[in-house]
Amino acid sequence: MTKFSQRCQNLNPSPIREILSIIDKPGMVSFAGGLPAPETFTIPNLDTLPSNYLQYGSSEGELELRLLICKDLASTGLHCGPEQILVLSGSQQGIDLVAKLFIDPGTLVAVESPTYLAALQVFQFFGARFTSLEQSVSSAENEVSEAPALIYALPTFQNPTGYCYSNQERQTLARYCQDSNLPLFEDDPYRDLVFEDCDRRPVCSHLKSGTWVYQSSFSKTFAPGLRLGYLVCSPDLITPLTRLKQAADLHSNRISQWLVIEQLKNPQRKKQMEALTNTYRLKRDNFAALLNEHFSDLATWQVPKGGLFFWLTLNRKVDTRSLLAKAIEANVAFMPGENFFPFQENTASTSYLRLNFSHASEGAAEAGLKTLAALIKAH
Amino acid sequence: MTKFSQRCQNLNPSPIREILSIIDKPGMVSFAGGLPAPETFTIPNLDTLPSNYLQYGSSEGELELRLLICKDLASTGLHCGPEQILVLSGSQQGIDLVAKLFIDPGTLVAVESPTYLAALQVFQFFGARFTSLEQSVSSAENEVSEAPALIYALPTFQNPTGYCYSNQERQTLARYCQDSNLPLFEDDPYRDLVFEDCDRRPVCSHLKSGTWVYQSSFSKTFAPGLRLGYLVCSPDLITPLTRLKQAADLHSNRISQWLVIEQLKNPQRKKQMEALTNTYRLKRDNFAALLNEHFSDLATWQVPKGGLFFWLTLNRKVDTRSLLAKAIEANVAFMPGENFFPFQENTASTSYLRLNFSHASEGAAEAGLKTLAALIKAH
Repeated sequence: MTKFSQRCQNLNPSPIREILSIIDKPGMVSFAGGLPAPETFTIPNLDTLPSNYLQYGSSEGELELRLLICKDLASTGLHCGPEQILVLSGSQQGIDLVAKLFIDPGTLVAVESPTYLAALQVFQFFGARFTSLEQSVSSAENEVSEAPALIYALPTFQNPTGYCYSNQERQTLARYCQDSNLPLFEDDPYRDLVFEDCDRRPVCSHLKSGTWVYQSSFSKTFAPGLRLGYLVCSPDLITPLTRLKQAADLHSNRISQWLVIEQLKNPQRKKQMEALTNTYRLKRDNFAALLNEHFSDLATWQVPKGGLFFWLTLNRKVDTRSLLAKAIEANVAFMPGENFFPFQENTASTSYLRLNFSHASEGAAEAGLKTLAALIKAH
Repeated sequence: MTKFSQRCQNLNPSPIREILSIIDKPGMVSFAGGLPAPETFTIPNLDTLPSNYLQYGSSEGELELRLLICKDLASTGLHCGPEQILVLSGSQQGIDLVAKLFIDPGTLVAVESPTYLAALQVFQFFGARFTSLEQSVSSAENEVSEAPALIYALPTFQNPTGYCYSNQERQTLARYCQDSNLPLFEDDPYRDLVFEDCDRRPVCSHLKSGTWVYQSSFSKTFAPGLRLGYLVCSPDLITPLTRLKQAADLHSNRISQWLVIEQLKNPQRKKQMEALTNTYRLKRDNFAALLNEHFSDLATWQVPKGGLFFWLTLNRKVDTRSLLAKAIEANVAFMPGENFFPFQENTASTSYLRLNFSHASEGAAEAGLKTLAALIKAH
């Protein structure tokens, strides 16, 4: 028997991976992944790609891209220089790099509950224990509990809940990080998919000092197949994170970087983003109407102000994993809520579903939700 | 002061990274990186890219690509199914994943000396100690020394030495791995850059059982900017490695995967590969002639049968790192040999340079080697 490392003794399959492997099946209606709508994709053109983009590049990423990201971030209230930016092979990579940098076996990480399941998995893989971010923030005054070594939060259109922090909540979190001198890892892939006015200013922009990483992605606003994201961080972290990036994959795909540069420079970009958010707003509204029709006696939910998901709290406890098996037989996929909880006790008496509204067509969404509601009633 | 993880207490800068950051300076002649010749690049065309390639994909990689890789591997003597293949974001990622799977603090890894420096760095980052692969193989009979937990080898056009194992040496290594029941990690990025007849059959193909990973890259035969490679492994490893890949970056860039599929299916491919190796053979021969002219009284070397490097053993001890600083001032870059040695004692009395012959044009190579020889004489 081959001896694996300690960290691989308990390497769980990823629910995301399992679901990505079924989405291509013909006839499947998938509410599971955070998949952008295929109708928003356009085939890129490489005719004017400079040939030096085919050569090895820098680990930090193209300077032109980093400058454009800075400009974009400044419009959100987060001011930084290109030397603070690291281009990533998708924002999943940022989670891997930050975990490598901060997490030893036993390291305490404060997380929202529920939170992004793939982040929980990576943190756990490197040995993290979890504590509730809400409790950490609210009990900051009386220093009873053990302080976490890292804080992970998705303040804008949270995954899975879709929740968006208020200005007050953003300032409270920033103050907690600063007063406790704790590093903040802010994950913000959905920021630009906004359907209603709301405060989306990065919590990191409220920090006057301290250690922080803010990351976002081009998967939702351009295309996931490009595998391109970025992080920006406090000056103390850029050197170690760049070295970790170098060790992980040398640098990110340069064709993707060039395509994103072209998109960010495109004078039509503002219009394109408006068209994109209009498309998704319509899809969200249509989905909300279908939920009202089929789920009003089964679950409760908030209509999300942005992002790609509805988060349903079922009226009664259901084993959502066995429900998923049945749903897949009936050609409908969703994401069971349990996967998003760092603490089992949160799912003892309630069940949750995460439903993506962006991928399925209107007709498919109607058929899929009808099927799913019937399965829940029968379960 | 922010507390980093134990593994990041001693995070060294990568010599590769430092050198990649200077190669773009105008007028610089770089013998440092393993950079393909820019004249071998052609601008790719995406006109017929299916739009579903812009969506999220599977962590394993495109099935069509994995089938083509199987076909290619079969021609080398390594027979496997597509379910044993994992597409990588460049072969550096394979090193990260294999290290995650096998290496705990203190894990003993047997390596060639010298060996690929970026592998040494990643193994060390996860806590590896090193032992000499040659000594491990030759002392296998008397079980005195501690057995390694992993073997890492570059049998074909080794980096940095360019050495190619004989058939006898391949079989000896395979027998050692099998008899000792030790996992073999065979790194083979240069296989297709072959200039003379020689045995290039993967050592893994000689294994009748056991645990193994073989990896290669499309950086040298297509373009490094695509960041695409792959690994193939024994059936016991594909599930954990796929889960690790998922946690690292979900999946590899799909545009790159599609471009490589198109290239592998291209009926002109055999001709293109012949043209590529002819280009590199000419460059190697030209470089060998220049070395004879400028370095015959300074160093010794073997003309490599494949790959991208000459490995020079200097006739006397020189501090090659301070030499590098002087060389860079004079617009010439090379890779100091010290970086490739896992054991300091190997460089106590001798100095080495790794010189890449593929990137510089003929004129630039001549000027650069002349400058470098003069600097060594004066040092």
